[in-house]
Amino acid sequence: MAGEFALIDKYFARPTPSAVLGPGDDCALLQPTPGKQLAVTTDMLVSGTHFLPDTDPKNLGWKALAVNLSDLAAMGAKPRWVTLAGALPAVDEPWIAKFAEGFFACAAEYGVDVVGGDTTKGPLNLCITAIGEVAPGQALRRDGAKVGDQIWVSGRPGLASLGLAHLQGKVKLPEPWPRLCIGALEKPRPRIALGLALNGIASAAIDVSDGLLADLGHIAERSGCAAAVQLVKLPRLRDLAGSGESYNADLRRLALDCQLAGGDDYELCFTAPYDQHLAISRIAAELELPLWCIGEMVANPEAAPPGTVTVLDPEGVAVEFDHKGFDHFA
Amino acid sequence: MAGEFALIDKYFARPTPSAVLGPGDDCALLQPTPGKQLAVTTDMLVSGTHFLPDTDPKNLGWKALAVNLSDLAAMGAKPRWVTLAGALPAVDEPWIAKFAEGFFACAAEYGVDVVGGDTTKGPLNLCITAIGEVAPGQALRRDGAKVGDQIWVSGRPGLASLGLAHLQGKVKLPEPWPRLCIGALEKPRPRIALGLALNGIASAAIDVSDGLLADLGHIAERSGCAAAVQLVKLPRLRDLAGSGESYNADLRRLALDCQLAGGDDYELCFTAPYDQHLAISRIAAELELPLWCIGEMVANPEAAPPGTVTVLDPEGVAVEFDHKGFDHFA
Repeated sequence: MAGEFALIDKYFARPTPSAVLGPGDDCALLQPTPGKQLAVTTDMLVSGTHFLPDTDPKNLGWKALAVNLSDLAAMGAKPRWVTLAGALPAVDEPWIAKFAEGFFACAAEYGVDVVGGDTTKGPLNLCITAIGEVAPGQALRRDGAKVGDQIWVSGRPGLASLGLAHLQGKVKLPEPWPRLCIGALEKPRPRIALGLALNGIASAAIDVSDGLLADLGHIAERSGCAAAVQLVKLPRLRDLAGSGESYNADLRRLALDCQLAGGDDYELCFTAPYDQHLAISRIAAELELPLWCIGEMVANPEAAPPGTVTVLDPEGVAVEFDHKGFDHFA
Repeated sequence: MAGEFALIDKYFARPTPSAVLGPGDDCALLQPTPGKQLAVTTDMLVSGTHFLPDTDPKNLGWKALAVNLSDLAAMGAKPRWVTLAGALPAVDEPWIAKFAEGFFACAAEYGVDVVGGDTTKGPLNLCITAIGEVAPGQALRRDGAKVGDQIWVSGRPGLASLGLAHLQGKVKLPEPWPRLCIGALEKPRPRIALGLALNGIASAAIDVSDGLLADLGHIAERSGCAAAVQLVKLPRLRDLAGSGESYNADLRRLALDCQLAGGDDYELCFTAPYDQHLAISRIAAELELPLWCIGEMVANPEAAPPGTVTVLDPEGVAVEFDHKGFDHFA
């Protein structure tokens, strides 16, 4: 059985052209770009909490990195470097090789170098820290939304949790949705290019990891206002619930729940002043990524807790939802 | 029961004067010092592998951070920022409060801000990434040792593993050693000031986490030479094994094993040209930290694997040891 150090060398020590010194010393050495600020984020993924123990290791490798890069995207930062620490119950070389394949595929796709890490024995756990760069004053923080700003979301949030429900046998999605939804779940695409394009345009941003309403609530709370989402403006999941005689009301309801409260999508939810509407449409066209204007930031109602998110039906009546997102300890 | 977000806010979101933006957004924002390089290190600590499940959480908090700062010390970097990710089996608020107390005590002692993190449910696991700064070309890498350089070690390596053996009931240390050794195990002091003082003086450095011989071997291997350690030059653990009729040969042997192969000390092992001897003595005096010159870098013997470490007895004869350090999967 290979020792810890040999393992690290074999699978995770790859060339790191963007680093002064890569893995293998006490620290990595990095030269930041003069004048830039660093954006730093850390995520820990635990088997059984964030992914199923039998998840395909290649998909897991991709996703473990993608969710961290998504936080950089949500900040409008350009990804530069990552570290990877992992606890593994045993040395399973085929598993490690596949995990590394997915991880480095994502690293290559988004131009980051894996500059350091740690490997240890223990219940399966992956912890990644990603470092990006952003020009001072340009970062997309959560606290910059203003009353009257429009609320936007990219792509089609909800697909990932629909995919999970399908995999768990809670629902049988009609064709061609299983492939789409499982793809969104297993291989999320951090919206790096969108985050960079929104520098100087968006007033606030967050990535949709806990669920659209919950994450939008974080923007609203931090910005000291409230959010009103219009149900009819959510991306249409065309044909998912069928129509006419084949209309499936349960599936329609599930899809709506997933759109509003399903996590794991890693789309960006952002706010921008009304006069940026055209610029945002231009970004959507350039990136070939649908961007949906789903509502508006409003003054927080008196007596309501800060950060209230309201969902309005076509008649403008508030709709109630049971839950707003995922909280590991709630 | 408090939710995840409330927990994070309550215990880990403290003022971060050194950050542009601290915890609570998608990323922390940091302004690096112009002209400096970043030194970045990550360590994962797993319950049952790196610490006992019933470890005092305050000590654990201190140590979890200290071992990362030790990697910055070994690089000669000045600590600036850290992120903390933790998986917890349940919300045990008194445990979290004590852990945070120890963690922030260490952060305050060494002047770092906790700028971000992640909390999740899972088997107890702590992952810390520390970021420091160092002037370009000044970092104490592992690969700079030259044949003829002297080998140095700080403090008294071996105490931590003697303390562990005592706690595990494998040995009963005589007074006053239990307090000293358990203190070294539970509250290691990263040698930050030493690492900074060695900028421009040491040719290579590493912190003793796996064991003196193993860690020195990393320097030798990376530097393409070998190391010869003289047994008589190791720090004396005066009176530990008694003398005369009370002399305990087993304890003497254990102490030697711990000095050479016991991990978890976080002293610095470094090499320096002979003409820096006086400068190093001056550093020892200024820092009130004993620094021991324990041997010399030598040419790697032909046919030997790179990085050979030899231990010589007073007659210059090589002594054999069973193991050279800790490898989680070996």
